Amino acid sequence: PGLPSPLPAYPGSPSPFPFAVDDLLRCGICFDYFSIAVIIPQCSHSYCSLCIRKFLSYKTQCPTCCVAVSESDLRTNRLLDDLVKSFNSARQQLLQLVLDAAPAPSPPA
Amino acid sequence: PGLPSPLPAYPGSPSPFPFAVDDLLRCGICFDYFSIAVIIPQCSHSYCSLCIRKFLSYKTQCPTCCVAVSESDLRTNRLLDDLVKSFNSARQQLLQLVLDAAPAPSPPA
Ligand SMILES: [Zn+2]
Ligand SMILES: [Zn+2]
Ligand SMILES: [Zn+2]
Ligand SMILES: [Zn+2]
Repeated sequence: PGLPSPLPAYPGSPSPFPFAVDDLLRCGICFDYFSIAVIIPQCSHSYCSLCIRKFLSYKTQCPTCCVAVSESDLRTNRLLDDLVKSFNSARQQLLQLVLDAAPAPSPPA
Repeated sequence: PGLPSPLPAYPGSPSPFPFAVDDLLRCGICFDYFSIAVIIPQCSHSYCSLCIRKFLSYKTQCPTCCVAVSESDLRTNRLLDDLVKSFNSARQQLLQLVLDAAPAPSPPA
């Protein structure tokens, strides 16, 4: 037993922001946040521009659903880049809120 | 003077989740969260499917950047729907965390 923690533990989560939003903003090829996101219009899957271009040079299909894709099909999905930026700054703000809201440790009586 | 509040005030923000992510997940036509999001591949702007189809029946261009668009150009942007769902559930979780972390009001001594 011990003092109640202000945040529940999220095993395996490296960030203080454990929500699924984090996963959704990651590229299925590099597993990092989207960097210059592009969408494959025929299947609606999105990847980093560089990641999918590298993949397509090896195999001309979507790595998730295997639909046929050529590089000229790719279109930017700019909103995802904006969301990654805002999400990262929201995470910083959230961490600060949690730190500010947590009671300061009191010395033993 | 008074007790420090666990959350700063965000004037005009109806939700406890004041970050820009919220704005980015809203359709520029109805200003609500995306509902069946579609992307205009030629300009990368996204809207609710119904909102942009209604708009295109009146004027065949993107309401934000005025590029020429026909209904057959539209492609689903499914990740945005998933993000809206996750974001809304994250908001609920965040509210709960903040409520749990806030010290219970103590009676006057
Ligand atoms: Zn990637
Ligand atoms: Zn796909
Ligand atoms: Zn709309
Ligand atoms: Zn546009």
